[in-house]
Amino acid sequence: MIRNLTALAATLALSVPVVAQEEPEGAPSPGEIVAQAEPSEWKEIPADDLLVMTLADHADGHERKVVIQLIPAPFSQGWVENIRTFARAHWYDNITVNRVQDNYVVQWGDVNYDNPEATGEAKPLPEGLKVMSESEYASTNIAVTKAWLEAEGDASGLKLLSSGLVDSVGAVRKAITQTLPSDSYSSRALFNMGWPLSQEAGSPSSEVWPVHCYGMVGVGRNLSPDTGSGAELYTVIGTPPRHLDRNIALVGRIVEGMEHLSSLPRGHGDLGFYAADEAYKRTPILSVRVASDLPEAERPRFEYLSTEGETFARYADARANRRDPFFIVPAGGADICNIPVPIRRVAE
Amino acid sequence: MIRNLTALAATLALSVPVVAQEEPEGAPSPGEIVAQAEPSEWKEIPADDLLVMTLADHADGHERKVVIQLIPAPFSQGWVENIRTFARAHWYDNITVNRVQDNYVVQWGDVNYDNPEATGEAKPLPEGLKVMSESEYASTNIAVTKAWLEAEGDASGLKLLSSGLVDSVGAVRKAITQTLPSDSYSSRALFNMGWPLSQEAGSPSSEVWPVHCYGMVGVGRNLSPDTGSGAELYTVIGTPPRHLDRNIALVGRIVEGMEHLSSLPRGHGDLGFYAADEAYKRTPILSVRVASDLPEAERPRFEYLSTEGETFARYADARANRRDPFFIVPAGGADICNIPVPIRRVAE
Repeated sequence: MIRNLTALAATLALSVPVVAQEEPEGAPSPGEIVAQAEPSEWKEIPADDLLVMTLADHADGHERKVVIQLIPAPFSQGWVENIRTFARAHWYDNITVNRVQDNYVVQWGDVNYDNPEATGEAKPLPEGLKVMSESEYASTNIAVTKAWLEAEGDASGLKLLSSGLVDSVGAVRKAITQTLPSDSYSSRALFNMGWPLSQEAGSPSSEVWPVHCYGMVGVGRNLSPDTGSGAELYTVIGTPPRHLDRNIALVGRIVEGMEHLSSLPRGHGDLGFYAADEAYKRTPILSVRVASDLPEAERPRFEYLSTEGETFARYADARANRRDPFFIVPAGGADICNIPVPIRRVAE
Repeated sequence: MIRNLTALAATLALSVPVVAQEEPEGAPSPGEIVAQAEPSEWKEIPADDLLVMTLADHADGHERKVVIQLIPAPFSQGWVENIRTFARAHWYDNITVNRVQDNYVVQWGDVNYDNPEATGEAKPLPEGLKVMSESEYASTNIAVTKAWLEAEGDASGLKLLSSGLVDSVGAVRKAITQTLPSDSYSSRALFNMGWPLSQEAGSPSSEVWPVHCYGMVGVGRNLSPDTGSGAELYTVIGTPPRHLDRNIALVGRIVEGMEHLSSLPRGHGDLGFYAADEAYKRTPILSVRVASDLPEAERPRFEYLSTEGETFARYADARANRRDPFFIVPAGGADICNIPVPIRRVAE
């Protein structure tokens, strides 16, 4: 959607902007930095990694589509395969959103599955589902680990990111490490392949895992050692519940249509499930399709900003040190979940 | 609302709980620890610090009331006084929610105030408003600072919180400091007087400020040196935007009815303001009253769990090291915004 500057100025002047993210003067905002990225820094997401989830139309008549990006190897690949299996069996069609817990999660699945109070038949699960082990919540099979450690050891000739300059891939990594000076939930927070990750301290073979930021998608499960199949999914709609990291399989994130989930009415049963007297609030999910299975003209295309490039380092630095005109005290650091990886639709 | 255990068990079995916060067996959950607090650990919030904001009924007919707790001294007292002035002048009556930006803020005010596209007359501001300085975003006038530093220096005989035991107020403080091992936005995150705070490193006279967690309420403003009057307020509905700390006056938090704001339809104008063609989405605010001005029978009463007691330390520790049965890997730390201070209605 293109807006003219007059309209923008008017909107900013309206009722005191909390953050003037689009402010045209002064130091560039994080959004302006991203807008200047070279085309080569944008990486297309494979159509096989995109799910299109169509909800029933809103009561006011508007269409509701949610696009989910599945996480690439080496993370959670067994669950990700299961999710494609469910989608291709059309198993997700006509399930519902059953839980909306404020400041926590939205969760969807078959309301009659594994439910002693079921009012109908549970859908039989499709064939060929994998049973995954808890060891798959993290991975040691990720090359980035070593590269990050090397980058950290190599401080020679690096320019600090506070200068707003970076001069090598090593410097990019160093710079982002400086932006993420500490993490309450791991030894190190980092970005790689377009994803927010965490890592244990120690050797290059130590574990790395994706983290629970806003909009990340995970696999519901019962008590350990159950790890869930992928029949039941949730997304984060509040404070990052990082205590779930390594306790649940994260399989992706919402890249479009998040508001159709985050603005749903909250449930008043235990844990935010809709109670029996509010069953009418359950939002039907009409279909979930892998984008690569759709006719080419209907496939949504998305790309993410490489987290290994100079632009991402400058963007992360600007998120951590806001210099655009609204701000008076830059923070000097940022939480990994407060540096969302830029994702955009590919222009038609 | 009391639930019987059968209903609870049924709900938990329904569709794989993401977090079994109410799980009755095994190590106590954070909620169970709070439920065991001594009555003396609960502190009543003064009625003069509570605002009752009544929204228009929802389209489905249900009532929508939001209760806000104003922050006590030494924080933001000029703005807090202004907010009482606005409320007592009934200035907030019939303003609207004008901005709902996903994963960021909900903001309310007079849609015609300071708006070049106004379609009606702006309300004149009440008399007697204070003009506040940016230096008031933080405070050096807080006794806790010294106590915290002393507690940190005194490690003799303290039991580590990982044992689940605390044996003195000093140990409580030490324990919470261990729970909050690092903070990306300050030298130290801490709790005091029931609020999440941050602090610069250094001397006991260093600055302390409240932080932008989910549900915190702040004062919208224009560009610096404007600091806002309190005519325009917002609350956080997503990832804690901690980069706003010390850049905006935080004046309180939502203690009840948050869902009536967080589930509102998102705006599609710049910065999440409702665009001209979605003006019908603006939710009317019928009235805002200071609770102490209401007839006694209508006053809501709330209390918070003391953040200086043993129960809070045990609760914070349990948030950082989940040992209840759902969890397999405790995190060993927590972000300050992922340890919400327990608040409850006083039983009638």
